Amino acid sequence: MLKKIHHVGVVVPDLERALALWQGVLGMHLTKRATILDQGVKAALLKVGESEIELLEPLSPDNGVGKFLARRGGGLHHVCFATEDVERELAGARAKGIQLIDQKPRPGLAGMICFLHPKATRGVLVEYAQPFED
Amino acid sequence: MLKKIHHVGVVVPDLERALALWQGVLGMHLTKRATILDQGVKAALLKVGESEIELLEPLSPDNGVGKFLARRGGGLHHVCFATEDVERELAGARAKGIQLIDQKPRPGLAGMICFLHPKATRGVLVEYAQPFED
Repeated sequence: MLKKIHHVGVVVPDLERALALWQGVLGMHLTKRATILDQGVKAALLKVGESEIELLEPLSPDNGVGKFLARRGGGLHHVCFATEDVERELAGARAKGIQLIDQKPRPGLAGMICFLHPKATRGVLVEYAQPFED
Repeated sequence: MLKKIHHVGVVVPDLERALALWQGVLGMHLTKRATILDQGVKAALLKVGESEIELLEPLSPDNGVGKFLARRGGGLHHVCFATEDVERELAGARAKGIQLIDQKPRPGLAGMICFLHPKATRGVLVEYAQPFED
């Protein structure tokens, strides 16, 4: 069962300028920053209620986020739902014939994560995340 | 101050098929359906935590949602943040030089709403909503 919107991923061309907008103008609170080399992104998380906005700047034009930026100029990229059991969600999606990007959960910024294939969800990139225990 | 993600708007070509996916496969709960003639959409709201997914099927190819569908084939369309005072948020955004779509709040499915201009937010369509009192 999906518990909440964990975060909404937003691709940006420049993380510093994006932070100036989302923090400075829209008034959100920065909770975490990280450079994730194996995903090829610089990321920042901004808290709003029980959810976060995840700003993503690609480190390379060749990865998925870089290609999205080149194609769209940035914008809403994916929505991530929190679950207590990402393995079970993935197995459930697979049993329902949903096409997957990740065949098994992997560690990400939000916890153990997996992505469904946007072809399966009509153009919406959906991520499931089981947050790490604090 | 923004309280939470009120909803994430998703444009779909066919609301019934989209509901089969988001309810039947992803397991979300339908809370409301409405045809909003003055916005030219059929809409459905699905609850997840304190937020909702808002599915939008355009009634015409000529309105904003219809043009988005034609251009992108559907997908993530906007993010809406809940606020206690949409007038104040709008005045604050205006004072910070943010370009607006709505110069004053208007009634929408989520309450009294307004949209910032995606040019101001680098391609992310942002809505503010002050929910109606129950």
